Amino acid sequence: MRLRFLWPGPTKSAEMRGLQEQYLGKIGRMASWDLVETKGTRGLTERAAAKILDIEAQGLEKHLANDYIICLFDKGQEMTSEELAVLLNTVGGETARPVVFVVGGFLGLADRILRRAQKRLSLSRMTLSHELCRVVLLEQVYRSLTIMKGRSYAK
Amino acid sequence: MRLRFLWPGPTKSAEMRGLQEQYLGKIGRMASWDLVETKGTRGLTERAAAKILDIEAQGLEKHLANDYIICLFDKGQEMTSEELAVLLNTVGGETARPVVFVVGGFLGLADRILRRAQKRLSLSRMTLSHELCRVVLLEQVYRSLTIMKGRSYAK
Repeated sequence: MRLRFLWPGPTKSAEMRGLQEQYLGKIGRMASWDLVETKGTRGLTERAAAKILDIEAQGLEKHLANDYIICLFDKGQEMTSEELAVLLNTVGGETARPVVFVVGGFLGLADRILRRAQKRLSLSRMTLSHELCRVVLLEQVYRSLTIMKGRSYAK
Repeated sequence: MRLRFLWPGPTKSAEMRGLQEQYLGKIGRMASWDLVETKGTRGLTERAAAKILDIEAQGLEKHLANDYIICLFDKGQEMTSEELAVLLNTVGGETARPVVFVVGGFLGLADRILRRAQKRLSLSRMTLSHELCRVVLLEQVYRSLTIMKGRSYAK
């Protein structure tokens, strides 16, 4: 299974980055992955929301091909960890195309990125910060892989 | 508003502890809080699940009084961040009793602790590790307080 994690701008919090790296290390024992942090925007505030989303979308689009695209979206579909495992098993089998998880910046994702997604996934009814979303996503992907492989994983 | 966070055993991951402390620091600007990490169990495996839950419950019970108790529970009620803000505003007003959030260990909480809760809250349909639950909970409490105070908070 080939997984890609794609988001605009590096994760700033040192603790969140540390957790990202830990989960990616664990994921790497069960699947191949890469992480692409595209160029973020600088010096723009929320008043320039449309511009920020557009610039971020331009960066993300360069890394989207004929992949199975899962966008994180707060109004997306909620799934259990088991349902995510079934989805990954179905779409990410060895000969299948890469599965790309796309997580937005602090304003989310542009509509044109969301429209390219085969699946729009919500991690929680609650609104999580975009950096925390990245960590929770990686933990869930790791958990899904352990479920698929029938391994136990500390709760 | 008086908030208590209560759980068995210290959070082990250094990164998770760092995030805990950051969110608690931010919460402290808007509410008074304390964190009680009760004695965890040692040397017991999941095969002794009932014993672990019982020992943990004994520690937790010492810190539960006539409080408004919110237990994290994977089959509990999901809420949006705004709904959590409304709940905290309603039950945690200045003259009201303390609001206690209880997060279990890796096996969750004993039934007798869950039965004492006024609210059983689920953070996600997905199963999060108990340490990640603590971080997500603190982020949500911080977010709820900013919503209540009408402050903006980076997404």
